[in-house]
Amino acid sequence: MIPDKRELLAVARGDLPADLVLQDARIVNVFTGELESGSVAIFGDRIAGVGADYEGRDAVDLRGAFLLPGLIDAHVHIESSMVTPAEFARAVVPRGTTTVVSDPHEIANVHGLEGIRYMLEASEGLPLSVFVMASSCVPATHMGTAGAALTAQDLASLRDHPRVIGLAELMNFPGAIHGDDEVLAKVEAYSDLAVDGHAPGVRGPALNAYVASGPCSDHECTTAEEAAEKLRRGLFVFFREATNARNLEALLPALTPRNSRRVALCTDDRQPPDMLDEGGIDMMVRRVIRHGIDPVEAIRLATLNPAEYFGLTDRGAVAPGRRADLLVTESLDELRPKQVYAGGVLVAHDGKARWPTPALRAAPAPAMNVDVDAVDLSIRWRASRARVIEVVPNQIVTGSALAEPSRTGDLVAADPGNDLLKICVIERHRGTGNTGLGLVRGMGLQRGAIASTVAHDHHNIIAVGVDDRSILEAAGAVAEMGGGLAVADESGVLARLPLPVGGLMSEEPIEEVRAGLDAVVGSARALGSPLHDPFMAMSFLGLEVIPVLKITDQGLVDVDAFEKVGLWVDA
Amino acid sequence: MIPDKRELLAVARGDLPADLVLQDARIVNVFTGELESGSVAIFGDRIAGVGADYEGRDAVDLRGAFLLPGLIDAHVHIESSMVTPAEFARAVVPRGTTTVVSDPHEIANVHGLEGIRYMLEASEGLPLSVFVMASSCVPATHMGTAGAALTAQDLASLRDHPRVIGLAELMNFPGAIHGDDEVLAKVEAYSDLAVDGHAPGVRGPALNAYVASGPCSDHECTTAEEAAEKLRRGLFVFFREATNARNLEALLPALTPRNSRRVALCTDDRQPPDMLDEGGIDMMVRRVIRHGIDPVEAIRLATLNPAEYFGLTDRGAVAPGRRADLLVTESLDELRPKQVYAGGVLVAHDGKARWPTPALRAAPAPAMNVDVDAVDLSIRWRASRARVIEVVPNQIVTGSALAEPSRTGDLVAADPGNDLLKICVIERHRGTGNTGLGLVRGMGLQRGAIASTVAHDHHNIIAVGVDDRSILEAAGAVAEMGGGLAVADESGVLARLPLPVGGLMSEEPIEEVRAGLDAVVGSARALGSPLHDPFMAMSFLGLEVIPVLKITDQGLVDVDAFEKVGLWVDA
Repeated sequence: MIPDKRELLAVARGDLPADLVLQDARIVNVFTGELESGSVAIFGDRIAGVGADYEGRDAVDLRGAFLLPGLIDAHVHIESSMVTPAEFARAVVPRGTTTVVSDPHEIANVHGLEGIRYMLEASEGLPLSVFVMASSCVPATHMGTAGAALTAQDLASLRDHPRVIGLAELMNFPGAIHGDDEVLAKVEAYSDLAVDGHAPGVRGPALNAYVASGPCSDHECTTAEEAAEKLRRGLFVFFREATNARNLEALLPALTPRNSRRVALCTDDRQPPDMLDEGGIDMMVRRVIRHGIDPVEAIRLATLNPAEYFGLTDRGAVAPGRRADLLVTESLDELRPKQVYAGGVLVAHDGKARWPTPALRAAPAPAMNVDVDAVDLSIRWRASRARVIEVVPNQIVTGSALAEPSRTGDLVAADPGNDLLKICVIERHRGTGNTGLGLVRGMGLQRGAIASTVAHDHHNIIAVGVDDRSILEAAGAVAEMGGGLAVADESGVLARLPLPVGGLMSEEPIEEVRAGLDAVVGSARALGSPLHDPFMAMSFLGLEVIPVLKITDQGLVDVDAFEKVGLWVDA
Repeated sequence: MIPDKRELLAVARGDLPADLVLQDARIVNVFTGELESGSVAIFGDRIAGVGADYEGRDAVDLRGAFLLPGLIDAHVHIESSMVTPAEFARAVVPRGTTTVVSDPHEIANVHGLEGIRYMLEASEGLPLSVFVMASSCVPATHMGTAGAALTAQDLASLRDHPRVIGLAELMNFPGAIHGDDEVLAKVEAYSDLAVDGHAPGVRGPALNAYVASGPCSDHECTTAEEAAEKLRRGLFVFFREATNARNLEALLPALTPRNSRRVALCTDDRQPPDMLDEGGIDMMVRRVIRHGIDPVEAIRLATLNPAEYFGLTDRGAVAPGRRADLLVTESLDELRPKQVYAGGVLVAHDGKARWPTPALRAAPAPAMNVDVDAVDLSIRWRASRARVIEVVPNQIVTGSALAEPSRTGDLVAADPGNDLLKICVIERHRGTGNTGLGLVRGMGLQRGAIASTVAHDHHNIIAVGVDDRSILEAAGAVAEMGGGLAVADESGVLARLPLPVGGLMSEEPIEEVRAGLDAVVGSARALGSPLHDPFMAMSFLGLEVIPVLKITDQGLVDVDAFEKVGLWVDA
């Protein structure tokens, strides 16, 4: 409850009792880097006073436990959790994250503005504050077919929503660097707010141009040197630890006491098993501390720093007037929230959520405009070398290799013995009948196929397999579910996980979705894939803004050259 | 000239030549705290690229000199320079200040919105970027009579101006702490922008309430302990070194590597002699460095920190896309700008301005609605103790003492032997005939009187003297000039400085105003005042928001009690 400001001030002065006083706390002061002993008075959803002795209608003696601001995830695609915002909250809030800055560009690629509005509605009234950055690159490029395209005008129409606070990652970095009209128009529409960047590997003069075009941050660094250069050029750098892009350890050497104010933490894309087993921002803070960074400094990376970057002056610190989003922990070295308060309400205790599950919000109807039976996956063989997408484990970048494919008759055949499999992207939004075909190394299936509608960012049906029949079985199962993940072999479907909300999210509890995901992943691994999560790996093979070789429904894309290329090198 | 963004990006990429390349610079990187060797490419008024080798139509070899961002003054009342914005710029830009955040509340107290609009117009097209905070407390309180009153609605009407970037110092701190409706309405009108605070000596629960009411900064700290507490509670603290409020040395012990990101520097009120002899923000940076703070850290206090606080993301750092406001200096330990660039143009060299003096802007007509001849300064004597304002040298706070005044007949007489002089404030805006009368200790005049329309914040005629006739001579001279400073004795006027713009500023060159000020100050000192600048000291004796005892046209004000009090204690 937002308190009356006059009453809040009366509580701050000590003239009215607080709703709740947290006594004998060791307060983590992110402004000064100090630990302060004292109490914190809460009124409504706000902190009224810090430090002084306050009277309250309720009081909790923290017995010297640490009290710190709720954690902030600077950049996350909630859709990657495969659950609705309410279920996402149930996973992250008990672990101490009380605010996320989300980019709903997954569902926006499927359902456009309707998808973004759904995410805003579905995140109303949660103990998690969900802010939204307007998705700047829908579609990511015109080298893939998405379900929607958002213009600068579409994006500007979102600005009035109180939880829309900036422009989301400007992934079209070549367009930004080269001053593409539409890209600059989008930046202009949000020039007074935070504009997030996305510039993997961009350095030197190109980086100067990217920064000059408008973005204020980057979360795609993979080396400490890259992070250091981006910090020097004025970008805020978000260190990322996603399920399939684990950059934190590599970037920590770039962190110094002098530049740390311009660093924040983000999860970007994390899936249910990692969310439930490892955690999210809380896990990142623990790792930063374990790396040897002072705990208060580590906590700043996930509190004050992102709050300042995004202009969220109502949070990110334990201070008068700010939201009473607070964690209690008995150790800073092994930060584990014992209690979590959101807006002054105890919402989690010992890692257990303590709020009622809200009613489901009506999701957009499933988008599945495809006839899988009509898809032809055959590739005519040539006596030539073919481009092969190479999976890099735990990274979303790929390699690009050349190989001479096997044949069956005059058609290319997968060659599981050499880990050379078929990959396809089947357009599912507009009924174009587009199917992109290619070869992939590193998925490791020995038989059968996997298929999914989680295929960044266009979220068409992506599938990898050893034979066409298995691929079509898996793809057909996915289409039938209105979206989701499936595993098949020639005998039929082996496992499936329905994700009917945009083909990205389930409305079931996260524990059930996790079990379903474990089942399909287990089934895929039983077919021979050595990858931790073959679906997650596959989901980024279609993202034509991450180097170097990717596939969309329109075919292969050389991301460095930023153009479509044929399968055969000498074609 | 603001460059075409596409062309700027082409320069950044190296595809088009820059307008100017500053080569072989040691660049002060305020993001990372590092020194970088390299070149900086400038195009139009912007930095296009940093670090890389660039080609330019023009090039300057800096031979390893230091290149840093133009300095930012976080809070200044330009009116206190006694000259127009153009002349103010001529004093500060050659010393390295390229941006000031100003609060025009002096002229606003005289001329209201018209005065603020004049300051905005008179600062157009200068090499100095003059931002304006909407003056929140005009009048400072209702215990004094000013020439104008600005409502929340008036202030909101300023928001559309591109150089209005927030709400100026919320001096009515009792009103803020107690949740006064009009104060909260003003904060609400600017809640998405920076709201500057002003809370001298406010600590503990009252500070919690003040912070919760909305302000984000404070520049009134006088002790390191006060600054440390305000930083802990989340206020940005501006360290001040004004002509009459020299707080820098006292506050530096509060500065730590952990909290320095939330500290900036400001001059608040500086007069021509100090501006020309000592400097301003440049002098403060030098002193911070001399105190032992790392030079890059010291520079951040006057560049990146205030830029971040005010959301001025287009400046405060040497980075692509930001304004090419730059200083060149051969030593960081003894920071003296050799060259100053503003918007990419060389505007000063070796401390000399190199731009043409712009045409004068039409100032508001002088405001002088008073009949000095009708003023009666007599105070009926009583056998009682009187409240006496005590001047504290070099501070704007005053003491409050009790004394038994001398008499001549049944009237109170000044007693220069005991340094007990008469002080009066004669209302000059509205013709009310109000005159506040009191006693002051510490001005030190042995004979004669001084009078001035520079009387914070109401800017009525304030005068101090040994006898009524001298006081009325001096006050009459001030009225006759349409405002200004005057010294008189019983024989007549001894010296005068006309300040016809609002009674605050001259349209003459700053060197002439400085000579005029030296003359009136010298004359006042010849009358016996030991103060460095008796006029400056006097000008704050009427500021009823600075503790502890002040005087307005309505009489004495006990600032701690925030109420008017009589001259006699037991009346």
